[in-house]
Amino acid sequence: MLVRLRKNLAEAEVSLFLALAGELGYSARFLDEERELARLDGPGRPDHRSRLEDCHAVLQVLDPGLARELHLRPPGGPDRVVQVGDALFGGEHVSLIAGPCAVEDPARTLEIARAVRARGATVLRGGAFKPRTSPYSFQGSAHAGLEVLGRVRREAEIAVVTEALDPRDVEAVGEVADMFQVGSRNMANQPLLSELGRQRKPVLLKRGFAATLREFLLAAEFVLAGGNEQVVLCERGIRSFDPSTRNVLDVGGVAWLKRHTHLPVIVDPSHAAGRSDLVRALARAGLAAGADGLICEVHPHPAEVHSDGAQAIGLEDFSILASDARALAALDGRSVVQPGRVSARVPEKIPAQ
Amino acid sequence: MLVRLRKNLAEAEVSLFLALAGELGYSARFLDEERELARLDGPGRPDHRSRLEDCHAVLQVLDPGLARELHLRPPGGPDRVVQVGDALFGGEHVSLIAGPCAVEDPARTLEIARAVRARGATVLRGGAFKPRTSPYSFQGSAHAGLEVLGRVRREAEIAVVTEALDPRDVEAVGEVADMFQVGSRNMANQPLLSELGRQRKPVLLKRGFAATLREFLLAAEFVLAGGNEQVVLCERGIRSFDPSTRNVLDVGGVAWLKRHTHLPVIVDPSHAAGRSDLVRALARAGLAAGADGLICEVHPHPAEVHSDGAQAIGLEDFSILASDARALAALDGRSVVQPGRVSARVPEKIPAQ
Amino acid sequence: MLVRLRKNLAEAEVSLFLALAGELGYSARFLDEERELARLDGPGRPDHRSRLEDCHAVLQVLDPGLARELHLRPPGGPDRVVQVGDALFGGEHVSLIAGPCAVEDPARTLEIARAVRARGATVLRGGAFKPRTSPYSFQGSAHAGLEVLGRVRREAEIAVVTEALDPRDVEAVGEVADMFQVGSRNMANQPLLSELGRQRKPVLLKRGFAATLREFLLAAEFVLAGGNEQVVLCERGIRSFDPSTRNVLDVGGVAWLKRHTHLPVIVDPSHAAGRSDLVRALARAGLAAGADGLICEVHPHPAEVHSDGAQAIGLEDFSILASDARALAALDGRSVVQPGRVSARVPEKIPAQ
Amino acid sequence: MLVRLRKNLAEAEVSLFLALAGELGYSARFLDEERELARLDGPGRPDHRSRLEDCHAVLQVLDPGLARELHLRPPGGPDRVVQVGDALFGGEHVSLIAGPCAVEDPARTLEIARAVRARGATVLRGGAFKPRTSPYSFQGSAHAGLEVLGRVRREAEIAVVTEALDPRDVEAVGEVADMFQVGSRNMANQPLLSELGRQRKPVLLKRGFAATLREFLLAAEFVLAGGNEQVVLCERGIRSFDPSTRNVLDVGGVAWLKRHTHLPVIVDPSHAAGRSDLVRALARAGLAAGADGLICEVHPHPAEVHSDGAQAIGLEDFSILASDARALAALDGRSVVQPGRVSARVPEKIPAQ
Repeated sequence: MLVRLRKNLAEAEVSLFLALAGELGYSARFLDEERELARLDGPGRPDHRSRLEDCHAVLQVLDPGLARELHLRPPGGPDRVVQVGDALFGGEHVSLIAGPCAVEDPARTLEIARAVRARGATVLRGGAFKPRTSPYSFQGSAHAGLEVLGRVRREAEIAVVTEALDPRDVEAVGEVADMFQVGSRNMANQPLLSELGRQRKPVLLKRGFAATLREFLLAAEFVLAGGNEQVVLCERGIRSFDPSTRNVLDVGGVAWLKRHTHLPVIVDPSHAAGRSDLVRALARAGLAAGADGLICEVHPHPAEVHSDGAQAIGLEDFSILASDARALAALDGRSVVQPGRVSARVPEKIPAQ
Repeated sequence: MLVRLRKNLAEAEVSLFLALAGELGYSARFLDEERELARLDGPGRPDHRSRLEDCHAVLQVLDPGLARELHLRPPGGPDRVVQVGDALFGGEHVSLIAGPCAVEDPARTLEIARAVRARGATVLRGGAFKPRTSPYSFQGSAHAGLEVLGRVRREAEIAVVTEALDPRDVEAVGEVADMFQVGSRNMANQPLLSELGRQRKPVLLKRGFAATLREFLLAAEFVLAGGNEQVVLCERGIRSFDPSTRNVLDVGGVAWLKRHTHLPVIVDPSHAAGRSDLVRALARAGLAAGADGLICEVHPHPAEVHSDGAQAIGLEDFSILASDARALAALDGRSVVQPGRVSARVPEKIPAQ
Repeated sequence: MLVRLRKNLAEAEVSLFLALAGELGYSARFLDEERELARLDGPGRPDHRSRLEDCHAVLQVLDPGLARELHLRPPGGPDRVVQVGDALFGGEHVSLIAGPCAVEDPARTLEIARAVRARGATVLRGGAFKPRTSPYSFQGSAHAGLEVLGRVRREAEIAVVTEALDPRDVEAVGEVADMFQVGSRNMANQPLLSELGRQRKPVLLKRGFAATLREFLLAAEFVLAGGNEQVVLCERGIRSFDPSTRNVLDVGGVAWLKRHTHLPVIVDPSHAAGRSDLVRALARAGLAAGADGLICEVHPHPAEVHSDGAQAIGLEDFSILASDARALAALDGRSVVQPGRVSARVPEKIPAQ
Repeated sequence: MLVRLRKNLAEAEVSLFLALAGELGYSARFLDEERELARLDGPGRPDHRSRLEDCHAVLQVLDPGLARELHLRPPGGPDRVVQVGDALFGGEHVSLIAGPCAVEDPARTLEIARAVRARGATVLRGGAFKPRTSPYSFQGSAHAGLEVLGRVRREAEIAVVTEALDPRDVEAVGEVADMFQVGSRNMANQPLLSELGRQRKPVLLKRGFAATLREFLLAAEFVLAGGNEQVVLCERGIRSFDPSTRNVLDVGGVAWLKRHTHLPVIVDPSHAAGRSDLVRALARAGLAAGADGLICEVHPHPAEVHSDGAQAIGLEDFSILASDARALAALDGRSVVQPGRVSARVPEKIPAQ
């Protein structure tokens, strides 16, 4: 490990640093007379970089060396492939998640599930617990919504992803969902992440709208460090100074993530755009930048949506988008996983995977 | 209420809008032939603006009229004054919160509490639960830390503010703390805010580092709408493109908030600066812009701090800062509340206020 | 035009507004008793929106109505196609611009020009005047560089785009270049834009790294209003809070621009990425989002580059990128214009087009 | 100098780096076997840091050592004090600049000049050339405006600062103005900065609204490197994601600048706020953070202003603001320079200083 120390440290501060390095099992050697640069040789465990960065004497870990965090892709290492029902994310596989912003009534939700599945979605999205900016906005149908999702899941034979907002709801969500969603506002919600680290079911982790890529990966690390290796990252747009679009889809971030981590990365063009007429362009851009899938708000009647209706696309637009996805995936020798391919595997009850 | 609708709406969408307005008790009148502008006359309850904004047909509420949310300052209305032990925030009162980033061992924490109280702090800060970016960083001493805080609170006769991260910890934190802190990462954590809305004890709500002022006020509204009227807002710096300082203290935001809400507003110069040598300047700037107090990381030996040591200031610097605060408050005919003034009132057990 | 006025205006302010509206030829009618909303009926010239926004009484032009600026795409209107030598930007046509960051010596520059042309570039890029952050960085070879460009242009039979920084250099640049480039730092440099508005040769206008899309379009309007209709917009990444990549390519902005303006839009993946390993992904994302072309830094030996070498890609990578471009264009029924198709048209001397 | 090189450099790249170091007069020594860290011992001229950063092999200059740029404050070194007519910026001196956004007619401009001088301003601001976002907005009265400024300057006995937008106008502006202003949009306009480096008259350099502090200082370095040592920096707010205020005044940046450079730093609360009701709070915050002065838009009748009227304050508000400034300066043992103190020195003709 290569560490840069603060300038003009007191002797006591240097000693504290050396003691910590020793305690972690490293031998330290200063590279310069001013003792601002130190090389540490030793075990290199995933937690050591953060432990050293916590030390007051340390200005910056210039190179973590062997202290590789769990999210890091080993040089030349393969993609992790995450399976969710029929869907596969990563490697040669691109999968599509689609559905309403919030769970609707059972009949309507079933209709949507069947419609998006027929058009190429392998996972149904739909919020039972909705994070909202105002306490007076519709907050989702909660446990009733979960029940609808469970029923639709069985009847439409489609896997389901839905958001958990509160660590106390994780168990209930896990009884219905094939995949937990962590929303952008909750990317840094540690009690929630830690709870999900104890689950054995995939987690869709959305990037905070003002989180750096490093912070995003460390949020994933909370889940990974808990023992849950099935994390799918989702870039959904970052906040900028320009009100023209709601967020800016960070396609460079997608490409950067694919290089730095072995975890799959998908994009959410709906929240990035905030308006339906830009969704297709963003979906295409995300896939062209290397994303392993899409999560998209789709609704047969966007105008009747409870929340965020302006960004949902209709069914026909979703067909076009799925067709785009197949064409773009093919350019790279990848393919979009089709519903039903492994559907026999969606079980009545969801086992811990 | 003045509402702007989307262009070229289908008849069905306009009907949905009119039905919602009617259901909320408003009579609606279009101002133009294109039916893009509507005036609603009716009850104007705090939740109505958000309810209408949720409607797909609505592009923007141009003027909420009487639908005034609870955080809003009525025209010409007075400041809400929030009391926490000796401290008073708002109106003519400026109060200082100081202490370590994280709770230390009992002896050291007591030493710090007495030292900052002697220098003008009326509330001790100190984290038992620490939100951190990495799962491997020090996460605080948790319940042991709460116990230390409780003991120090009694022995040093100083009120205590500490952070709750997890809604499941709110009760335990409330048994020790005079004031709940919600950190920047959790500003939009709704289960936590809702839990705090059910408490009857002040809440220090920090602005999310990328939250708009409107989002900040709506986060406070979650607490207010729950029935807890004692919210103190804290501006702690927003994220920018410039790595020179960790955050940018939004002093214009402080002034804007003072105009829009009756809630007290304080600033956190420590997290805004991220480095101790700029803390004094930011503390002064915040007060000069109208802040009702400061929350500041102070430590007798900043170099030995577990986390975020680079931004803690020493005791002597805190003396200087407290002196600045008194001088700046005096310029406006305000005064810094001194410890002990009402200390007889800090009770053995903390009652619901 | 639909105009929103400030609240509680003095009578004199309303009169000033009405006088201006009358002077511009509009009849004004207030929609509400509070006189905060006014509808103006009248000529709707391109300059009227800005003229009214300049008026103190006006808070916002909610809808410009017929006052359409020159950059606006008429509803359903066609793309403007801009020709630069062999290259065509817009409509069904995608074109590639490639070359070194800064002009090199004549032999090397000629080598690069031939190499990128052989791989599909129809325009050579290369800076003679280089905008730099530090006065001590290499500022380009100036007039000597222009001379090299002129020679290479003739010998390699390729059109040339190069940057003008100073209005005093526009004439000299115009004697050599087929297209003027305005860099990101100079997007709002009005004397320069006005000078280019007087030219009759295409302008490649890069978006300021913190300019809103509206500001970007108004910068283009400076050129258009001067009578020069040949503007190609270039999205080159905006500044964000994340240091992982140098800029964030705003692909949603590309899609938004394509809807709002008839002008062609290209992307610069090199400056957006700031590092060569992400250039391909960003180039693909930009084209997938609808861009009409690319401008890319290419160099046979990136390590030897005078400035910004870390973002230049090698020749083989450019071949791959050109192949990507052809595949992506084909998905939309577009095609990448090939060099030589119309090369007979690159004349010895550059006429005003 | 301490330099960090890229990983895994080819031998040729390392050689190019060593050759450059040698050419600049440095002996280089690698600190590690991987040759990623190098210490350079040698002359340390102001331009050497940028020269090395231009080299492809160099990832980062970790410590510039003796290669100190001209704007840097030597450790413990004094403030540079810049004089403009009566005004003094820096050291113990705080000065106030006030006036209209744009120059008005002669009588009105003279009235304003006398009014702000009577209330404590030592420099009159007023734009003859106005940088605007739209080509159709009022661009200033240009040379006629300069003439008005010259006349008012003599009659009101007040120094004048006005903006130069175009390098071709520098001479004309210099014949009238005591101080050149470079606006935020032009901070990185190198031909303009270079032209001002050749002048011998103070320059007020505004920070670009999205410029890092390092970029800001390097813009100043363009002027300093040209031989003009009289630069006053102006923080005027940076662009953020929040539309509540137009810009965010970076008071931490003011404090940071005061530590890093010997140049005076003032703030512009008017452009930061974008609305008159927040100007006072921002002015106070800026001075409390250590600013050496203010530049403020003041107008006797804000509603009649040609451009940006919403942010101008009236005369009475300026009196209050000047009073605030005196009180805040006094807290630090500084004082606001009063008009007339050295007014005998404002000459008929402006000599090169």
